[in-house]
Amino acid sequence: MKEIVAIIRPNKMTRTKEVLAALGFPALTAWKVLGRGKQKGLAGEVSFPLRPDLVQEEGGMRYVPKRLISLVVEDEDVPLVVGAIMKVNRTGAIGDGRVFVCPLEDAVRIRTQERGTVAIL
Amino acid sequence: MKEIVAIIRPNKMTRTKEVLAALGFPALTAWKVLGRGKQKGLAGEVSFPLRPDLVQEEGGMRYVPKRLISLVVEDEDVPLVVGAIMKVNRTGAIGDGRVFVCPLEDAVRIRTQERGTVAIL
Amino acid sequence: MKEIVAIIRPNKMTRTKEVLAALGFPALTAWKVLGRGKQKGLAGEVSFPLRPDLVQEEGGMRYVPKRLISLVVEDEDVPLVVGAIMKVNRTGAIGDGRVFVCPLEDAVRIRTQERGTVAIL
Repeated sequence: MKEIVAIIRPNKMTRTKEVLAALGFPALTAWKVLGRGKQKGLAGEVSFPLRPDLVQEEGGMRYVPKRLISLVVEDEDVPLVVGAIMKVNRTGAIGDGRVFVCPLEDAVRIRTQERGTVAIL
Repeated sequence: MKEIVAIIRPNKMTRTKEVLAALGFPALTAWKVLGRGKQKGLAGEVSFPLRPDLVQEEGGMRYVPKRLISLVVEDEDVPLVVGAIMKVNRTGAIGDGRVFVCPLEDAVRIRTQERGTVAIL
Repeated sequence: MKEIVAIIRPNKMTRTKEVLAALGFPALTAWKVLGRGKQKGLAGEVSFPLRPDLVQEEGGMRYVPKRLISLVVEDEDVPLVVGAIMKVNRTGAIGDGRVFVCPLEDAVRIRTQERGTVAIL
């Protein structure tokens, strides 16, 4: 089991979720975050000075609203899920986001007390 | 040390925190997330069409507000904490949530510079 | 590669980000959380009964708004980054927060499809 965490553009959320559900991964958790890549939220954005999705945080450093999605998959499904997220989210422009694969030791479905792989299916 | 992450119903937060504190685990971090299990946020919810906690996200897929709690415990306390979270959150209905156990390599308490197990007690 | 997660005071965010950027770690993700340490959000706060950053959650237990920041670094940079976060955030008062080091198995930059260490630089 692995946790796959992706930090993506807000406007890619719907399509990402649709594709993951279509591939058999409907279960995920999502939340709003502020993110900044190595360009410090600037390099890729200077040609869009009026973009409303740019925010100015305390201290004058710019962070861009992102969506973080997290889902848990079996080891063998990691390449498929990472590949699907990349396919949907790759525009080639700065700010496409990143995907992380994290180890996970156990999962429990509270309703049924199922543990391990069966709890994430 | 393990990080225990639980995604639970909002109305179970208070009791979950009370029970964890009573067991000696008062330290936790919580945030609001949107979640969907394998039923795509629908199966368990169709009998409550007017529930205000259902949200319609972009793209027409339903996500349900959840609370995510995260706490760090010693390895030996994992079964106790997971069991307590399950006990409080299990209603038997779809949407009870899930618990994940994640490896953690180190913890540091900033104030005292304590590291490792002592930093999480 | 490790994920470093720090739970810090909101008023330390700007300086923390500035220092991390100056050290060559501009990429991070941040979000707002509610946290409570072992003092249950009370011990360190009773002398400041009117502090607006104290919130009363359901059930009467106090949680304090915190910022959670997450960044991914190479193994060799873990001590530097943890040390920098501690340096900026240590006031010596209760509530300074904690830093966690989590294993990470892979990282992918969506735009370029770079994987592993190169995806986090």
